[in-house]
Amino acid sequence: MGWELEALAQRIGGKVRGNGKLEISGIASPQSPQPGFLLTVWDRKILPSVPGNVPIVAPYGWIEDSRDGIEVEDPRAAFRELLGLFADTVSPPRGIHETAFVSPGAEVHPQASVGPFCIVEEGAVIGKGAVLRGHVFVGRKACIGEGSVVEPMAVVMENTIIGRNCLVHAGCALGCDGFGFERNPGGFPVKVPQVGRVVLEDEVEIGACSTVDRATIGETRIGAGTKTDDHVHVGHNARTGKGCLLVAFAGMAGSSSLGNGVTMAARSGTADHVRVGDGAILTGCAGATKDVPEGAVVSGFPARDHREDMKAQVLLRRLPELLQRILELETRLAEIETKGTPADG
Amino acid sequence: MGWELEALAQRIGGKVRGNGKLEISGIASPQSPQPGFLLTVWDRKILPSVPGNVPIVAPYGWIEDSRDGIEVEDPRAAFRELLGLFADTVSPPRGIHETAFVSPGAEVHPQASVGPFCIVEEGAVIGKGAVLRGHVFVGRKACIGEGSVVEPMAVVMENTIIGRNCLVHAGCALGCDGFGFERNPGGFPVKVPQVGRVVLEDEVEIGACSTVDRATIGETRIGAGTKTDDHVHVGHNARTGKGCLLVAFAGMAGSSSLGNGVTMAARSGTADHVRVGDGAILTGCAGATKDVPEGAVVSGFPARDHREDMKAQVLLRRLPELLQRILELETRLAEIETKGTPADG
Amino acid sequence: MGWELEALAQRIGGKVRGNGKLEISGIASPQSPQPGFLLTVWDRKILPSVPGNVPIVAPYGWIEDSRDGIEVEDPRAAFRELLGLFADTVSPPRGIHETAFVSPGAEVHPQASVGPFCIVEEGAVIGKGAVLRGHVFVGRKACIGEGSVVEPMAVVMENTIIGRNCLVHAGCALGCDGFGFERNPGGFPVKVPQVGRVVLEDEVEIGACSTVDRATIGETRIGAGTKTDDHVHVGHNARTGKGCLLVAFAGMAGSSSLGNGVTMAARSGTADHVRVGDGAILTGCAGATKDVPEGAVVSGFPARDHREDMKAQVLLRRLPELLQRILELETRLAEIETKGTPADG
Repeated sequence: MGWELEALAQRIGGKVRGNGKLEISGIASPQSPQPGFLLTVWDRKILPSVPGNVPIVAPYGWIEDSRDGIEVEDPRAAFRELLGLFADTVSPPRGIHETAFVSPGAEVHPQASVGPFCIVEEGAVIGKGAVLRGHVFVGRKACIGEGSVVEPMAVVMENTIIGRNCLVHAGCALGCDGFGFERNPGGFPVKVPQVGRVVLEDEVEIGACSTVDRATIGETRIGAGTKTDDHVHVGHNARTGKGCLLVAFAGMAGSSSLGNGVTMAARSGTADHVRVGDGAILTGCAGATKDVPEGAVVSGFPARDHREDMKAQVLLRRLPELLQRILELETRLAEIETKGTPADG
Repeated sequence: MGWELEALAQRIGGKVRGNGKLEISGIASPQSPQPGFLLTVWDRKILPSVPGNVPIVAPYGWIEDSRDGIEVEDPRAAFRELLGLFADTVSPPRGIHETAFVSPGAEVHPQASVGPFCIVEEGAVIGKGAVLRGHVFVGRKACIGEGSVVEPMAVVMENTIIGRNCLVHAGCALGCDGFGFERNPGGFPVKVPQVGRVVLEDEVEIGACSTVDRATIGETRIGAGTKTDDHVHVGHNARTGKGCLLVAFAGMAGSSSLGNGVTMAARSGTADHVRVGDGAILTGCAGATKDVPEGAVVSGFPARDHREDMKAQVLLRRLPELLQRILELETRLAEIETKGTPADG
Repeated sequence: MGWELEALAQRIGGKVRGNGKLEISGIASPQSPQPGFLLTVWDRKILPSVPGNVPIVAPYGWIEDSRDGIEVEDPRAAFRELLGLFADTVSPPRGIHETAFVSPGAEVHPQASVGPFCIVEEGAVIGKGAVLRGHVFVGRKACIGEGSVVEPMAVVMENTIIGRNCLVHAGCALGCDGFGFERNPGGFPVKVPQVGRVVLEDEVEIGACSTVDRATIGETRIGAGTKTDDHVHVGHNARTGKGCLLVAFAGMAGSSSLGNGVTMAARSGTADHVRVGDGAILTGCAGATKDVPEGAVVSGFPARDHREDMKAQVLLRRLPELLQRILELETRLAEIETKGTPADG
């Protein structure tokens, strides 16, 4: 698995400094730099503390003459590329594993991989290069696009459409019934049947143990390039634009929508039918109960402008002091009211 | 899959307007009305914007002479019924799939359906018409009631009792150990064995990736007709009454209880041993740290009366203004204290 | 399954009072004491309400002469031990179930148990006495330590290391990719490959539907004896010390860390890179956005000293009153400003 420094430099489009024949065994974590492992540096301040025998990747001009390394334009991009090169990935074998259960009415591309104990129901389509890792359920008429990977214990319910090059992590549930109940006059919940579907556009990633519910009618849709963390919930008929990020425990209620490039930080949420504009950011724990304008940054519950919320939060901490000041004002005023001002004296 | 308008009218107990022979292919979403798809209207304001060739379901007297449609008493009820009629459901085959693993000591009703790769352990009972969709685990002595459906990757641990006509969505875990730990004198967590069980009464629905933990001793019980959304957590020895609704990320701590008809909105929670009265509502993110009276609506954390909480929230936003007013009072008072009042002048 | 009282007394190191031959069928829940079931009492106030024919376990000197029971030093410890004695546990059969799929390149100890439909990939190691209950996925080179139990539908991704005597509950996902994305200049999320791993030290318990993500590089590590509830999330490169407790919906963001003996109450969280000191407590819903000192108790979001937060919360509720007092001050001051003080009169 080793690479010579000069081969890596070529791959990441950088320039070798020092010994190009140096053998590199892997990528170092900043917490534990060590010889033979390449450390990427994007903060010049840490350079002096890196032992001289540790090879580094850094911007042009940062590498001392005595050190081996690679100079690059963009160290973060280089870092991502290097991680990919050293990733311990194995291509699963093409074809259908002997223990899988594939309906005769399903269509599996010969270059797809269907792992052990997978279920592929009638009318489902598994595209070219798609991978069902093992223990994956694909329901009737569901579709897994070219190059998409579905990890173990993920459930893809009937009629769900997954685009190309998506990654669905372990334990996700895509396409289960939305939470559609109305209380009858007696107060008892009556189910609204959920007959719509879920669509993931291309390049979508869904984190482990996340849920995207099918629409009541029509679609719940995740826009191209949108990525969710673990434990994320997208309710029925909700929609995200392209390139959104939904961090752990983020939740979208029914029929809410995100524009393009929206960020929902951890534990943030949208209420029913709320629309969030392009590029907006919901900070951690923000709960949007009304529409959020394009580019806005909102906080708190109910969510509002982040700076205003911060101000109020700071003052909230100063409440004991404010109370004290009110008390003092009351005392001083009572004094004046009874005894008059010094000028009266 | 098509229906004639008059056949549908008969099914939903309504009256045809216009062409009863009109072929209906499905239910339209309000966002995309189209000919041949039935649109249900319960807000008269949207009527003028519905194209004339779109058939509708609406209250008596709303349908123009030029339009095809069905008049009904209760359009929402009609909508639910229509969704059910057009739902793409398939009855799974009766019997035990050849790939399933059913213990010889388990009892599976001949009219039950046990799908691929299901595990049914010793002493478990699967009732008449019950469906284990595929990849379902049913532990020792667990019981799945008549007509109940368990979706893929759901786990029903030993001794769990599921009533009739329940629906357990994908990825649920029912009957795992409650979180029972005590710190020993050294501060180290020591496990309290969890030997109780979980009971779901009839007509219960549990959302995807939700958890209901077994009791320490005795039962954790979900009342008849209670429905949970995805990512809901019910701790050990907790109980819900009948007809409760628990929305996404709602959480009940150990030994807490809900009366009948309680609503826990998204991300709301109950602390240990808290009792919530019949018909009470916990709004989004509310955290009940003490008992909630019957019929109360509570917000915030710690939760309190919703209206009072709203008032405080509004004032919280006005804190910068309040601070300003205090500052002004201080200035004015200082002025008087040093210079006296105008009357002194 | 019955025990004689004197046999139980011997097991829990207590002293019999009354009839040592009394047959005990199980452990009673405090809600439903009944003859034949042993009730443990650690609150003397409840003693008078316990029917005289119910046998009890209680501290020395508490048991009346007329009652059967066992006197002990520490009733809570006795309770835990008794629960364990009456737990309905069954040792799964050793060996690999005929329906499991174990790679020839995996190493399964002859005294391990691999249940139905388990997948054990190339290079994985299953230790002595370890149990994969059924429907468990163990990826390449993952390791399940001696005596550890993995419940159904749990996913242990490649390279994950699980120590000895751990318990991984149903539906967990250990070792999936961390949420590592950077927005490119066009705002589009670009994935940072996640090549590290997850390590659970010995005696760790992970609750149902919880996730522990693999590190970007290096390790995400759960310290020995740490226990998590259901729906807990531990992000990439996060670390916990020994003996921590993480309650339902607790979440640790990337590279955050806990010292030893930390408690994260329900729905609490740590932001990226935040360090929490030994023995600190995050109360329910607390969100630590900066480091938390050893032994501190913090609340709120952003989290701060619990007592200060409580004071502010109390004052938050008094805001309507504070506003009223400001209004009154303004009126009184205006009065003085225009009409002078009584002394002027």
